[in-house]
Amino acid sequence: MTPWNQVTIVGVGLIGGSLGLALKRSGLAETVVGVGHRQASLDEAVARGAVDRVSLDPADGVRGSDLVVLATPIGNFLATIVAAAPSLAPGAIVIDVGSAKASVVTAVEAVLPAGRTFIGCHPIAGSEHRGVAHARPDLFVGAICVVTPTDRTPPDALGRIVATWARVGMTVRLLSPTQHDRALAEISHLPHVVAAALVRAIGPEAESLAGPGWSDTTRVASGDAAMWRDILISNAAEVAAAIEKFQGTLGVFRAALRQGDAARIEALLAESKARRDMRVGHKPA
Amino acid sequence: MTPWNQVTIVGVGLIGGSLGLALKRSGLAETVVGVGHRQASLDEAVARGAVDRVSLDPADGVRGSDLVVLATPIGNFLATIVAAAPSLAPGAIVIDVGSAKASVVTAVEAVLPAGRTFIGCHPIAGSEHRGVAHARPDLFVGAICVVTPTDRTPPDALGRIVATWARVGMTVRLLSPTQHDRALAEISHLPHVVAAALVRAIGPEAESLAGPGWSDTTRVASGDAAMWRDILISNAAEVAAAIEKFQGTLGVFRAALRQGDAARIEALLAESKARRDMRVGHKPA
Repeated sequence: MTPWNQVTIVGVGLIGGSLGLALKRSGLAETVVGVGHRQASLDEAVARGAVDRVSLDPADGVRGSDLVVLATPIGNFLATIVAAAPSLAPGAIVIDVGSAKASVVTAVEAVLPAGRTFIGCHPIAGSEHRGVAHARPDLFVGAICVVTPTDRTPPDALGRIVATWARVGMTVRLLSPTQHDRALAEISHLPHVVAAALVRAIGPEAESLAGPGWSDTTRVASGDAAMWRDILISNAAEVAAAIEKFQGTLGVFRAALRQGDAARIEALLAESKARRDMRVGHKPA
Repeated sequence: MTPWNQVTIVGVGLIGGSLGLALKRSGLAETVVGVGHRQASLDEAVARGAVDRVSLDPADGVRGSDLVVLATPIGNFLATIVAAAPSLAPGAIVIDVGSAKASVVTAVEAVLPAGRTFIGCHPIAGSEHRGVAHARPDLFVGAICVVTPTDRTPPDALGRIVATWARVGMTVRLLSPTQHDRALAEISHLPHVVAAALVRAIGPEAESLAGPGWSDTTRVASGDAAMWRDILISNAAEVAAAIEKFQGTLGVFRAALRQGDAARIEALLAESKARRDMRVGHKPA
């Protein structure tokens, strides 16, 4: 039996489109329905085989689906759920693919009709391209998906969602929504802010001296500004807290430099090097 | 006529050895003399063709040379000059290859005998490997060399040094020693401290979520701790000042996040993206 009878993907862009392709290629869904607000994008999703049929109306698009995937920008989730609620099938599972979890999980769980389940998901996959034109079924292969159950999450629903991400090639990790947001702030959102700030730190003489090290350290700052605005704002409290803690860590380095404390500087650098090498293997600058 | 009759390189490691190879391959030096404190390294330098003859004694090694290159760690420069001074030929030019300039230029100019010239140089080239075993004549090709003349620098000596770096393949930029130190703090030393601090910012849940973005942003933190200790300490005042300014920039991002000011966040990100893309071309994360 096919794991999902009908899956509705709301927002058929790079992630939503790739998930449609992956679900169909893997035989995980009998039918995939695409919901969007631009007919041209929906037509393209059909043409690329990412979805079987489409709708401009969430209430219409989710009817009869046992899985609904929210793949629009985070800011649109609530409006989608409110619009779709009346026609969400009993027992339907709703997931998202957004990069912030605590605020989303709390808000969506609050408005979801009884008998329907929401499970926050964050597949950490993507590319520099956007839109269904760049969707591909192997987008998720080898990447990590964080799934964030709460004490309201039925174990069988959680099991089906975890199995689905695993079947499209992802390594699944379970974290609480708050743990997720803190971890993402530390591993992704803070580094993005830091890279953006580093670009602003260079004066005119330094501009022409940029080499591979600088290029690596600041690379993520070339990401799309509007997309990262949404990511940072949706996790603002955790990111702000991570920045504050980071300012303190920089203060430790600064104090050691002001004191000319070479031994302390070396100890700090050596510990960072050891932690990074353990994490990613030694790939020197 | 060969540009240099005899060149002495003090410290025949990766940089010194590569310079020896480059000078000989390019026909820029009649004879190259290597000075070091370990006979085994000097023997290896001869075997690799980086130098023609060697000495364990700086005073002996610089005798008769019209160019002396300081390629040891910065902390050894003064002792070398003091030891070599009695036998430095009249008109000899001394250069270094260290990554900090203001303190070095001031100190060396102060102890150099009359009629000899010191010109600070920083060829921004290297690799993750150290030692003459990894020396190669093309190490400098396509990279930038900052040369830092002062008002005491004779123009003809400056011209010969600039021409020499250009002949081994480098793009030469002239900055004052202080401009150099500030620029390097901004483009290299601050990013190194930031990368090392970012590695320390991740808690246990985040550890396993590290992806390509994190790996890029922190890559330089895998550099050799002792080498970077020396680089940071030798430019401590400028690096500390750059860190302090950077903490302030992070505060701007933090304040915007605390206020949920999405427009401000987007403007900050968009400006950083534009500046970086202009500098290195768009290479997204």
